[in-house]
Amino acid sequence: MPIIRLEMFEGRSIEQKREFAAAVTREACRTLKCQPEDVNIVIAEVKKQDWATAGELWSDRKTG
Amino acid sequence: MPIIRLEMFEGRSIEQKREFAAAVTREACRTLKCQPEDVNIVIAEVKKQDWATAGELWSDRKTG
Amino acid sequence: MPIIRLEMFEGRSIEQKREFAAAVTREACRTLKCQPEDVNIVIAEVKKQDWATAGELWSDRKTG
Amino acid sequence: MPIIRLEMFEGRSIEQKREFAAAVTREACRTLKCQPEDVNIVIAEVKKQDWATAGELWSDRKTG
Amino acid sequence: MPIIRLEMFEGRSIEQKREFAAAVTREACRTLKCQPEDVNIVIAEVKKQDWATAGELWSDRKTG
Amino acid sequence: MPIIRLEMFEGRSIEQKREFAAAVTREACRTLKCQPEDVNIVIAEVKKQDWATAGELWSDRKTG
Repeated sequence: MPIIRLEMFEGRSIEQKREFAAAVTREACRTLKCQPEDVNIVIAEVKKQDWATAGELWSDRKTG
Repeated sequence: MPIIRLEMFEGRSIEQKREFAAAVTREACRTLKCQPEDVNIVIAEVKKQDWATAGELWSDRKTG
Repeated sequence: MPIIRLEMFEGRSIEQKREFAAAVTREACRTLKCQPEDVNIVIAEVKKQDWATAGELWSDRKTG
Repeated sequence: MPIIRLEMFEGRSIEQKREFAAAVTREACRTLKCQPEDVNIVIAEVKKQDWATAGELWSDRKTG
Repeated sequence: MPIIRLEMFEGRSIEQKREFAAAVTREACRTLKCQPEDVNIVIAEVKKQDWATAGELWSDRKTG
Repeated sequence: MPIIRLEMFEGRSIEQKREFAAAVTREACRTLKCQPEDVNIVIAEVKKQDWATAGELWSDRKTG
């Protein structure tokens, strides 16, 4: 019954989410020996102003 | 000090959240022997394009 | 497809977890209009030395 | 490699998030003996209708 | 900066975790267009007595 | 009502957790304008075999 959660910056397309879900489910089943219908993936998109690394918001970074 | 988190598809009404919070808090207190004011419930609504089961986004499903 | 997560101090019996799971699933189905088999509940037990309120670890508290 | 997550009501300014991220990263490094670049902070803003204490949604509270 | 979290029953080998981490990181980079060093995966193992589906603890199930 | 969660490798002392909790609560109150008793901090310790960066478990790393 694996539950997989993905947190990433917002902005990926639905096509990218679709490919991520398919590929990660396939690899989870292969490596963890489970059935596809037992794998749930939940995606949370995070704004750059809500994520900080090294104490700095990504929205404040020059690059990123 | 239980913290309860609910992830579900978006679209439920505030009345449904209100009833869920009241009922789950009551049952948590009864079964876990805690006080209502110690129970926090946090709800996260997830879009169908952000949830996959069996490798398929729920937004791509014919039914669901 | 609700996922419900419970964080609480360690120490509850398996009988309490069993009653919590049954009752919360029943109330989730009633209030959120979903089927029991769609409700997953995951419990995480937290040690008192890993939970702080008001800046104080619960393992340091005189009462709690 | 600490990951720190903050859940709070929506409504704080980006300046408050910036100060929180800087201060908490600094204190995490000081107390946990890690490097700033190893600290990730992720903020999730929660609506008052998605948070309940004592079984009551905060959006239903007179004060809060 | 994706963060990926995996919750599953306890009992998988470290070799399975190793393969899962390698494969999922590779697929995350391919589908989300990110660098391997930006991908963090955190695994949480859950006891069967701490996971319920359809209101029943997995430790109480005859099969599963 | 901020909830703060810390995930880090296991191995820090209770004294380090105590200092982290006190310092982060103080900074959260200062920057987010909340009361200490409203701040909950939950710590989760993660084994090196349960955390991967760049597709490699930290338990497999030569350094880290």
